Amino acid sequence: MTPTLYERLCADDRRPSPYCWRARLALAHKGLAPEVRAIKFTEAERVAFSGQGKVPVLVDGDRVVSDSWNIACHLEEAYPEAPTLFGGAGGRELARFLNHWVDSRLQFALSPILAPSMLEIAHPDDRAYSKETREAKYGMPLTELRAERPRHMEALQPVLEPLRLRLAESPYLCGTAPAYGDYLVFAEFQWARCADPQDMLGAADGAIRDWRGRMLELFGGLARRVPAFDSAA
Amino acid sequence: MTPTLYERLCADDRRPSPYCWRARLALAHKGLAPEVRAIKFTEAERVAFSGQGKVPVLVDGDRVVSDSWNIACHLEEAYPEAPTLFGGAGGRELARFLNHWVDSRLQFALSPILAPSMLEIAHPDDRAYSKETREAKYGMPLTELRAERPRHMEALQPVLEPLRLRLAESPYLCGTAPAYGDYLVFAEFQWARCADPQDMLGAADGAIRDWRGRMLELFGGLARRVPAFDSAA
Repeated sequence: MTPTLYERLCADDRRPSPYCWRARLALAHKGLAPEVRAIKFTEAERVAFSGQGKVPVLVDGDRVVSDSWNIACHLEEAYPEAPTLFGGAGGRELARFLNHWVDSRLQFALSPILAPSMLEIAHPDDRAYSKETREAKYGMPLTELRAERPRHMEALQPVLEPLRLRLAESPYLCGTAPAYGDYLVFAEFQWARCADPQDMLGAADGAIRDWRGRMLELFGGLARRVPAFDSAA
Repeated sequence: MTPTLYERLCADDRRPSPYCWRARLALAHKGLAPEVRAIKFTEAERVAFSGQGKVPVLVDGDRVVSDSWNIACHLEEAYPEAPTLFGGAGGRELARFLNHWVDSRLQFALSPILAPSMLEIAHPDDRAYSKETREAKYGMPLTELRAERPRHMEALQPVLEPLRLRLAESPYLCGTAPAYGDYLVFAEFQWARCADPQDMLGAADGAIRDWRGRMLELFGGLARRVPAFDSAA
């Protein structure tokens, strides 16, 4: 039975949510092509059956799984014959550390850069919600936050350093083939690519850029063929 | 045959090198108690047989292995019956990412805090070398660098965030038992503990502190029983 994935819908059918990209890519890794249902921020009641209001939510047979990490763990356990997402117990544990690194460092660095762009691509029905929550988070109008972009781009640079080092020596974070660790990190760049015309990578980031290009080609160009800006292609 | 580990010697028999602690703990994890030979910075010729002048260097039978990562990989391959350091192929790949994160972010944040202390505990024969190389690295006298400690302690705080999140949910970075990922990170705190009387952890770091305490007890208190400062006990 085809699983169903609920993900975030933005204007012009854009799907920027990095959490949802983690789930999309993990499903593709397991050879699963879900039926995707995209919902607006203001439609949280559509996933209320999961016991909470956020996406992604995966419905897989009689299992309902929310939270991108729980979805990855569910897929690894439910589809042991398909390619592994974690490469064993040790890989799963350190993927969880990587998950925290992405959330608290990489996404933390990208968020103030992308927040104003996220308002621009918000679904018209979500604009008021998006503006209010993001301006509350940063304590300033998003126009002011946009003016601080150069400072935030500079703060992003040292955060990228472990990725530069790793991808200078290995085609993927997870070795010779991509796995969940790659999806965790790539989803952030895919978020940027869906939301903002500026490339988040600079002159020193050749190895990350090449890896991102390889990630965009995976699964028949799954990540490349969605509405996005071309700068980060 | 007992392996031999060459590591760094500092004043009063202190052994602060984080790279060497990675190797010491990886050996202990595999149930190996090496003969340890400690050398000064100015005795690089004692490991010249390894084709380079840095420590750690492991001599294991007819194998000579330099570089902490290479040592971990050698041990995992040469002692497959002993407890695993990586927990499988996926764990090894992400441990390498963690290695880069430690080197480029955690150690990068700790270095300017600890550099002046490292001069204080330098072996008397290494003091001139230590002062010269560290002052060249930071472009200022170490007394000036020490005066900037509050700023560097502040810069350390966000770097610790992924550790706070991971250790709030798990007793070890690698799950229910420690493995190489734990040794990579703990070695940095052990370095601080051997070199400096100030605890690098603050009020928000209870989970990291508890984990550090567990790490100090491993292998019969291997890391606890060396000359160190008590503040980070």
